[in-house]
Amino acid sequence: MQTIEQTFQVQYSYAVYFTQHLFSLSNPLLQQFFEKTNTETGFQRKALVVVDEGFSEHHPELGRELSQYFATLIPHIQLAPEIITVPGGEACKNDVAQFDKLVKAVDVFGIDRHSFVIGIGGGALLDLVGYAAAVSHRGIKLIRIPTTVLSQNDSGVGVKNSINYKGKKNFLGTFAPPVAVFNDLTFLRSLDDRDWRSGIAEAIKVALIKDAAFFEWIEEHTAALAGRDEEAMAYLIHRCAEMHTDHIAGGDPFEFGSSRPLDFGHWAAHKLEYLTNFEVRHGEAVAIGIALDCVYASKINMLPEAGLQRILDVLARLGFELYHPRLSENDKINLRNGIQEFREHLGGQLTIMLLEKIGKGVEVHELDTEVIAQAVDYLETLPQLTESRILH
Amino acid sequence: MQTIEQTFQVQYSYAVYFTQHLFSLSNPLLQQFFEKTNTETGFQRKALVVVDEGFSEHHPELGRELSQYFATLIPHIQLAPEIITVPGGEACKNDVAQFDKLVKAVDVFGIDRHSFVIGIGGGALLDLVGYAAAVSHRGIKLIRIPTTVLSQNDSGVGVKNSINYKGKKNFLGTFAPPVAVFNDLTFLRSLDDRDWRSGIAEAIKVALIKDAAFFEWIEEHTAALAGRDEEAMAYLIHRCAEMHTDHIAGGDPFEFGSSRPLDFGHWAAHKLEYLTNFEVRHGEAVAIGIALDCVYASKINMLPEAGLQRILDVLARLGFELYHPRLSENDKINLRNGIQEFREHLGGQLTIMLLEKIGKGVEVHELDTEVIAQAVDYLETLPQLTESRILH
Repeated sequence: MQTIEQTFQVQYSYAVYFTQHLFSLSNPLLQQFFEKTNTETGFQRKALVVVDEGFSEHHPELGRELSQYFATLIPHIQLAPEIITVPGGEACKNDVAQFDKLVKAVDVFGIDRHSFVIGIGGGALLDLVGYAAAVSHRGIKLIRIPTTVLSQNDSGVGVKNSINYKGKKNFLGTFAPPVAVFNDLTFLRSLDDRDWRSGIAEAIKVALIKDAAFFEWIEEHTAALAGRDEEAMAYLIHRCAEMHTDHIAGGDPFEFGSSRPLDFGHWAAHKLEYLTNFEVRHGEAVAIGIALDCVYASKINMLPEAGLQRILDVLARLGFELYHPRLSENDKINLRNGIQEFREHLGGQLTIMLLEKIGKGVEVHELDTEVIAQAVDYLETLPQLTESRILH
Repeated sequence: MQTIEQTFQVQYSYAVYFTQHLFSLSNPLLQQFFEKTNTETGFQRKALVVVDEGFSEHHPELGRELSQYFATLIPHIQLAPEIITVPGGEACKNDVAQFDKLVKAVDVFGIDRHSFVIGIGGGALLDLVGYAAAVSHRGIKLIRIPTTVLSQNDSGVGVKNSINYKGKKNFLGTFAPPVAVFNDLTFLRSLDDRDWRSGIAEAIKVALIKDAAFFEWIEEHTAALAGRDEEAMAYLIHRCAEMHTDHIAGGDPFEFGSSRPLDFGHWAAHKLEYLTNFEVRHGEAVAIGIALDCVYASKINMLPEAGLQRILDVLARLGFELYHPRLSENDKINLRNGIQEFREHLGGQLTIMLLEKIGKGVEVHELDTEVIAQAVDYLETLPQLTESRILH
């Protein structure tokens, strides 16, 4: 019998909108989105909203605003009678009861594949909500409303979702694009300074490996960004989101091959997050990871010294710490093990992005653990230097 | 800030191979497949095998054959040290502990995204294994080796997977194509007559709505098929699988729109399976569902009487029962409720495929419950008729 060769393509499209006061009655963006997608007749479309607990506490008016917006402007979409709240941060991805709660809500409120799940929160919450939506009825339409810098410029605009499984980060997940992302700049006002800053690390990461001009822009706007200037932040998020979505569309969106996502500075970051029980936030760890890999690249004469100093300078002036004592513990063995773990994570072949110059990353397949240790020593002696630099 | 419009396509390709004695050392098919996919260097690829308990009991030599085949012909793939067995049938999809067992095995045996999960069993087991593979590490490569007629010609060659959730059939699942399907004709020898017959119902279904010539072929081969002729079954499976894969590739593979899969005869079948606690097997229920909808179509003067009689004749000569007492219980109210449940399942708008003539289905959006009741009465009085027909 002849072999059947099956081939087909699946097309994905979604928009990332940038706005302010998304749920204000004078903002028609969300209404227009639902109008535009209302192409099938005969179905009662519903929406289930899941909100980050912390965000909800900072925005006590959210529930009322949502009800009012839907009742007034989108009466044809039936809002589920209950808004589900979930603890934000990594905790929600560790607790399978949170996943169960969402799946149960999908069932109880009759959210079907013509309906929507709307996640409002940071990256971890959006990962959880995206996963629950992706596997319920084999995929309910997902709308992401990211409320942190990190989720607005990076994870929230991408195609991944996940939960942790018995301590294994992102062990369960799927590739499932949203149907829309709404980035509301005003939602960032309730962030504390650490979370505001953290998200900038991903922008620096992508600028360093892909876009020197963007890095120069960041360099010129460190004071504005550190001072919580919203206009500067709006530009940073937009440019970073744009580069992130371009990278996805231009490459291997669902990572079928061995291509890697944009994870410059991430091998040490992952290890450091783990070593500090996630007390160091992701963006803070990425800033240290970037610094470490840039010092490394400089030590092997790949990245010129002048470039290294500009990078460390930008990170320090944004307020990032560039060293953490856990990096040196146990004679740096924990950190060196991070290389081995990253190799396993990649399936046996190590691929690490390093910098050749600002704006150009190159992949290498080996790191010298002795040079890593020297790079850690370099960062340990650095704080005084950067302190003086900030004063200049 | 300008909206970012993200659009990309993802391409899926897989082959459905037809063979005999797949794990015999003289059959190079599986070896060739692994050679062909060995395009990335530097990764230790592994394989985790999950087998249907019932199939495993009928094939006690399976573990030894597998080990020998991999050790001799595919030494570059590292077989996980343990073959996982899972109870077959719907039970494995109801028990979340089975899902957990598979995810744990993926973790413990270090099965990453360069590695393979190989499911060997019937449709339910393949649904479970496919789901576990699809969500572990956001998608491990899945090889399906279906061991029943139904999974070889229908579900096993498609793109869906799922488990049940608190009694809700297929509530959790994804669309995730396999990387290959191997249909081994010799694996069907251990099926009992009911399972052998059951799978034929899906072939009749697809023939009736799409391909009159295929229906005529089945009509001419009822005796051979009922008598377990392997050559006839091989053709039936191939043609049915081909039509199923064509339907997927030509339509809306991941069902983003309101398009429906090929579920002619299925609304009553789903209800009957439920009403009999799944004592009636899926294919048996589909045969009754087809008979019911064909009688219905005849009663509303859509399907000519001669066509109806040919269809009932083929079903009866293959040995299918065309009536079950549960259809008439509670004055047929349970069955009538099935229409309402199917409407909800579809998201509010009912779409039912009926037959205009053999080889041509048409969709309707209403069924008259009184005519359904009359169709049930018709089937109840039918067995004697078909009995006499078989004797002719």
